[in-house]
Amino acid sequence: MPLPQLTRSARPATVSIAATNERGEQTSTLIAGEHALTIYLDRREIVTLMTMGAAPEALVLGYLRNQRLIADIEEIAAVQVDWETDSAAVTTRTGAHDIDAQMGRRTVTSGCGQGTMFGDLMQSIEQTRLPEGGRLASATLATLLDRVRQHESVYKQAGAVHGCALADADGNILMFVEDVGRHNAVDAIAGQMWLEGVVGGDKIFYTTGRLTSEMVIKAAQMGIPFLVSRSGLTQMGFEIAERLGLTMIGRAHAGRYLLFTGQQRFVRDEANG
Amino acid sequence: MPLPQLTRSARPATVSIAATNERGEQTSTLIAGEHALTIYLDRREIVTLMTMGAAPEALVLGYLRNQRLIADIEEIAAVQVDWETDSAAVTTRTGAHDIDAQMGRRTVTSGCGQGTMFGDLMQSIEQTRLPEGGRLASATLATLLDRVRQHESVYKQAGAVHGCALADADGNILMFVEDVGRHNAVDAIAGQMWLEGVVGGDKIFYTTGRLTSEMVIKAAQMGIPFLVSRSGLTQMGFEIAERLGLTMIGRAHAGRYLLFTGQQRFVRDEANG
Repeated sequence: MPLPQLTRSARPATVSIAATNERGEQTSTLIAGEHALTIYLDRREIVTLMTMGAAPEALVLGYLRNQRLIADIEEIAAVQVDWETDSAAVTTRTGAHDIDAQMGRRTVTSGCGQGTMFGDLMQSIEQTRLPEGGRLASATLATLLDRVRQHESVYKQAGAVHGCALADADGNILMFVEDVGRHNAVDAIAGQMWLEGVVGGDKIFYTTGRLTSEMVIKAAQMGIPFLVSRSGLTQMGFEIAERLGLTMIGRAHAGRYLLFTGQQRFVRDEANG
Repeated sequence: MPLPQLTRSARPATVSIAATNERGEQTSTLIAGEHALTIYLDRREIVTLMTMGAAPEALVLGYLRNQRLIADIEEIAAVQVDWETDSAAVTTRTGAHDIDAQMGRRTVTSGCGQGTMFGDLMQSIEQTRLPEGGRLASATLATLLDRVRQHESVYKQAGAVHGCALADADGNILMFVEDVGRHNAVDAIAGQMWLEGVVGGDKIFYTTGRLTSEMVIKAAQMGIPFLVSRSGLTQMGFEIAERLGLTMIGRAHAGRYLLFTGQQRFVRDEANG
C-alpha cells in the first residue's frame, strides 16, 4: 500500500514586526508565525490547531495518530494543506471513517492545562510496555544537549516557540520541529515517524517544554523509553513516567540535569557527569 | 440574588520527590502539584482540566465564563470541588442549562497549540471595545514587574508553572494565581473577578506565559486593556491585539521590555525607562 500523498506547505517560521523598547527606541523584532489550521477528516471537521506551520502535513498525521483517530497510516490516502482556506483535508482510503464513536467517547485532558485528547487514551497507556534493554549514557545525553543547543533557530530568533527533537541512541538528531505549541511539535514528530516507519524503542525524545502528563503519555505512545527536557516536571508527569518505567530527565541545561525516573536505563559516566 | 456556594478545596502547591543530579547525588526536589479535575455542569460532563489546584473553584467559574457556557454568575447556585472523586459539580439555579447547543457549535482553538474553546468566541471578540481612557506609565510597569518578581513562590520553588496577576492602575497586585497550565491561571483570575464583581477596564493583566492568540482573547474577554508578559508573542497574538487596540507589552523582565501594540495608552517616563 502506498504512503499518503502530501502537500508540502510549510509557512515561513518568523515574521518581523515593529516594537518600542524600554529606551523608547523603535525596533523591529522577529516573532514566531502562528496560523489557524482546521483539520477535516473525510470532510468532517475535527479540530482547529494554532501552528507555526513548519511541518503542517506531519502535524496533521501526528495529531490523527496521537489522538488515535486513525490506527494505521496506510488508511490515509492524502493530506492536503491549503493556506488559502487554512485547512488540511485528510482523505482516507475507505472514505467513510467511523470517527463518530471516537468523538463521542471524547475526554479532554491537558498538559498545557486545557488540551484535547480522545477516547480511552489513559487506559491504553496502561498497557504500554517500553523496551527495557536500551541504555542512555551521560556522555550521550551531553552530546544530545549540545546538538539541540546548536539547532534551535526559531527559538533563538523569536522566542515563544517550543522545540522537540528525536535522536538516535548516539545522541544524533534525526528530526527537529519547533512550533508555537509544544504539543504540535510533538505531534509533528510523531507524524514524521509514522510516515517514515521509524520505531521509538531505541530513540531519545527531547523537548524544551515541561514534562507534563500529556508529554509523558505522548512519548509512551511513540514507544520511546527516554524523555529529556530543559524544563521541569509536574506531579502527574512524574507519576505516569514512574508507572510506565520511562527514563525521564529534566532541567537538562548548561551541564546540569535531574534524573527523575527509570534510573535502570541511565549509565552515568564519571568523566562526563 | 446570592453568589454561588463554593467549597474551599485548594490542594498543596508542591510535592517533594527524589531525583539524581548530574554528579550522581541523590537529591530531593519540589515539583508542582498536578491533578485531574472533571467539571460537571448540572451533572453533564464538560471537560477534564489538569490543574495545580490552588484555586479550583475560581478556575471552574472562570472556565465556564471564558468558554461562554454561563453568561451570568447569578445563574450558578454552587460549585463543589471534591478531590476524592477529582470532580467539580456545578449546579445552576434553573437546573436545566441548555449547553448542548453550545457544545455543538464547538470549535477548538489554541494558544498552547491544542486548547479548547466553544462557540462563536472569535466573532464576539470582534465586537469587544476596550476602554481608551486608561494610561499605563513606565514607572507603574516597573512597580508591577517588581511586585510580580517578589510574588512567584511556586515557580521559584518548583518551576514548571505559569503565573498570572491582576493589578490595579498603580501596579498593585490584586490577585495572583499560578497553575501548571497558563490558561488555567488566567481562567482562575477571570473566575475570581466574576465572583467579586471586579471590572477589567482599569486593570493590568500580567502573565509569565507567551502572548498567544488565546491569551489576548482572554484579556479582551475580561475587558482588560493592558496585557504584560515576561515572554514573547506569536503572530496571531500580535494581530488580534492590534485589531482590538489592546496595549500589549512583552519580554518584560530585568528592566527591559518591548511595547508591541496599543502605544496610545503607554506613557514612557524618561527617568524610569
